[in-house]
Amino acid sequence: MKRIFNQETINKIGEKIKVAGWINNRRVHGKILFIDLRDMSGIIQVVFNEKNQEPYNAAQELKSEWVVEIIGTIQKRPTGMINSEIKTGEVELQAEDIKILAKSEQLPFDIQELKVSLPTLLDYRPLVVKNQKIKAIFKIEEEIINSFRRTLQKLQFTEFQAPVIVPANAEGGAAVFHIDYYDYDAYLTQSPQLYKQIMLNCFERVFTVNKVFRAEPSVTTRHLAEYTSLDMEMAFIDSWEDTMEVAETVIRNMLSDVKNNCSEELKTLGVVLPQLNDKLPRLKMREAQEIIFKRTKRDNRKEPDLEPEDEKEICLFAKEKYNSELIFITHYPTKKRPFYTYPDPKDPEHTLSFDILCRGLEITTGGQRINDYTKLISNIKKWGSDPRDFEYYLQAFKYGMPPEGGFAMGLERIVKQIIGLENIREANAFPRDMERIDERLSLLQPKKKTAKTKTKKKTKKIKK
Amino acid sequence: MKRIFNQETINKIGEKIKVAGWINNRRVHGKILFIDLRDMSGIIQVVFNEKNQEPYNAAQELKSEWVVEIIGTIQKRPTGMINSEIKTGEVELQAEDIKILAKSEQLPFDIQELKVSLPTLLDYRPLVVKNQKIKAIFKIEEEIINSFRRTLQKLQFTEFQAPVIVPANAEGGAAVFHIDYYDYDAYLTQSPQLYKQIMLNCFERVFTVNKVFRAEPSVTTRHLAEYTSLDMEMAFIDSWEDTMEVAETVIRNMLSDVKNNCSEELKTLGVVLPQLNDKLPRLKMREAQEIIFKRTKRDNRKEPDLEPEDEKEICLFAKEKYNSELIFITHYPTKKRPFYTYPDPKDPEHTLSFDILCRGLEITTGGQRINDYTKLISNIKKWGSDPRDFEYYLQAFKYGMPPEGGFAMGLERIVKQIIGLENIREANAFPRDMERIDERLSLLQPKKKTAKTKTKKKTKKIKK
Repeated sequence: MKRIFNQETINKIGEKIKVAGWINNRRVHGKILFIDLRDMSGIIQVVFNEKNQEPYNAAQELKSEWVVEIIGTIQKRPTGMINSEIKTGEVELQAEDIKILAKSEQLPFDIQELKVSLPTLLDYRPLVVKNQKIKAIFKIEEEIINSFRRTLQKLQFTEFQAPVIVPANAEGGAAVFHIDYYDYDAYLTQSPQLYKQIMLNCFERVFTVNKVFRAEPSVTTRHLAEYTSLDMEMAFIDSWEDTMEVAETVIRNMLSDVKNNCSEELKTLGVVLPQLNDKLPRLKMREAQEIIFKRTKRDNRKEPDLEPEDEKEICLFAKEKYNSELIFITHYPTKKRPFYTYPDPKDPEHTLSFDILCRGLEITTGGQRINDYTKLISNIKKWGSDPRDFEYYLQAFKYGMPPEGGFAMGLERIVKQIIGLENIREANAFPRDMERIDERLSLLQPKKKTAKTKTKKKTKKIKK
Repeated sequence: MKRIFNQETINKIGEKIKVAGWINNRRVHGKILFIDLRDMSGIIQVVFNEKNQEPYNAAQELKSEWVVEIIGTIQKRPTGMINSEIKTGEVELQAEDIKILAKSEQLPFDIQELKVSLPTLLDYRPLVVKNQKIKAIFKIEEEIINSFRRTLQKLQFTEFQAPVIVPANAEGGAAVFHIDYYDYDAYLTQSPQLYKQIMLNCFERVFTVNKVFRAEPSVTTRHLAEYTSLDMEMAFIDSWEDTMEVAETVIRNMLSDVKNNCSEELKTLGVVLPQLNDKLPRLKMREAQEIIFKRTKRDNRKEPDLEPEDEKEICLFAKEKYNSELIFITHYPTKKRPFYTYPDPKDPEHTLSFDILCRGLEITTGGQRINDYTKLISNIKKWGSDPRDFEYYLQAFKYGMPPEGGFAMGLERIVKQIIGLENIREANAFPRDMERIDERLSLLQPKKKTAKTKTKKKTKKIKK
């Protein structure tokens, strides 16, 4: 007999069927034993009656998370026993035969309640992914990527594969991880930026979903050493605002797709998605600083970037004033952005660049790029690099590059902000940071004799 | 005026429109100057008539790959001038205004003919992606991944993100790249295997698209240091053949999706896709060796794996005998497979594992995995590793893992084989190997003083 999913039992009343799954829990009521069987589709209640002695005896032995296969007949539950909390709440399975597929050892903690600290949760990640709230997080994460793809494919973007290993002459700036690459040096990519610009020559509108890496020398609730970047780049823009429009469309669709396609996951998590108005509000960074100063008397008006507390404050302002939990902040200072960022012709000290903040945290960075070959070369020099190190990349511009721009979205940050997680590690199934790769590194291996981490801190720190 | 794509001009006869793109080529016929303008949608012929002096003069200056924006009126071509080779072949654009968006330097070679060696092609990758055959390759590559996703999503699989950075106690075996990870050692992942098994506890059926890495100490036409792996894993299998059925469905759909959705790219490349019969033929590895021996008198019957020449020969056999250019080879020897491979209960020296070969090359590897916690521990020991190094991973089995299996497909190998590329580097936009990361490493940087490449060659080499 072919196994069916628990949810499919709803339409099988009176039929003999086979299901399989994990023991979610087990209750004894006199001469009847109940188990909740969990599979990918949900839960079904299975009834073992003493009268049917063989399966009843077998079921006595069952413990949480044992894996079983059960044959039986689907029947309507008695009226008083209907459980409206689950989809199969009007039926139950009368067990006739049970087969144990795998046993489980004693659980270290209650994985349904999951009242553990974050480090413990991460130590036990392979176990805690069984929890329905954890599952909901990663289902929503999948939907966000799917939504990103759907939106951009509809806009005739093509997806390409960007590399992880990059040469020594990478974009430079932020802290990078060093790789022993055969007899040479190589690095983990910080961003697919240069590659997506190159691929404009192929497809004109491109996007790419990639792991990117930052050797952040600190532990915060919003940084990961390895994260997923959702990147797009488009040529033949009329203005940098074209890229903002696409970014806004992408994010709106993400929120509506999560709302429509993950309603059950949102319910499981008890989450309300961020509010949006007809149009995302837009503020220049300097305007934002002015507003923050007026509201808080905190004077960061000369700072070249928004501080974390500023990002929170300006989001509060946007919610109060515009009823929007997302906001565009634009025109970041030229010296704080990478060499390829397009300066505002009307104000060259500031750039045609933007961030999107959501509930107090930057989730997207983008803008127009310099597409002129000679300007790019002079900017590379100005930023303290050698154009010869960029010869490969510069080919993309040497042979005719249209006006272009794009953006990058941090997947885990989006998940964290829209479902209100406290720590970005909760939004990554296998988070890597200074202290952890799966297990805590201090438990796993001795420190290296020679600490060789490449955390080059240049004066021109690149914000991406 | 808003720019439209070249292909959209077909329905704009008599209308004034704006297009933009690259100069594909330029021809002078007496007092008329023609250019073929290329954008992402294709080519349109633009006519500059001497009578319209300003745009005509501007067009004199145009060279290959310059980027321009042109306003003009779409008209029907004279009957004798229709070009059935292109989609816009019945119309042309009478130029009224032209704006140069970017210039190109002199091209180093003809990028439309592209008669260059592979190393030159890769040196100039940012330029040669403009070539329509190159574009076709990467469009097909995108379709293969999309098809993989669609098939598995339809079968209720969920996608998750597997990590690139893995701890020192990784799967072991094949050559791995070492990372300086803060004060610790880490490695680039060889496969998401352990993580997809873990995620079965979350979703029961999972897939993942990831970059994986092999520090292959050799240069061949079928290996890359970094490639894209299409991975799936499913729980509650009745038999290992469930995984073969899904693999066959995935590949059939890939071929039909490429056929249906990339017909133009196939035409551009002049490619015939591999033949398939109703069902992929299946041979045990030992049977295949016997057949190869009979056909060639080459006696590899005691070898623990198929040699590259064997893979080619058995594919010839499958094509002759079964009219199929793909074939399953099953039951590889236990000692040649990783510790988690399920031994055949009827013949424990061989495993419930399979490869799919396509036109002489392995493109997929899969099979059933050991889901029993204690068996897994004893196998880890047997394979010479310490179960304590796998404690994190082993949690997935300690707390109840159903019978399960899965497979991995090499994206670039699929592309290479189905469109008949000579070298796998052609199927990767930015191939990395011993000698190259974008540019040739020998040109880019000096050798490291201390060669520290980790190419641990253990006796139990893992084949994945």
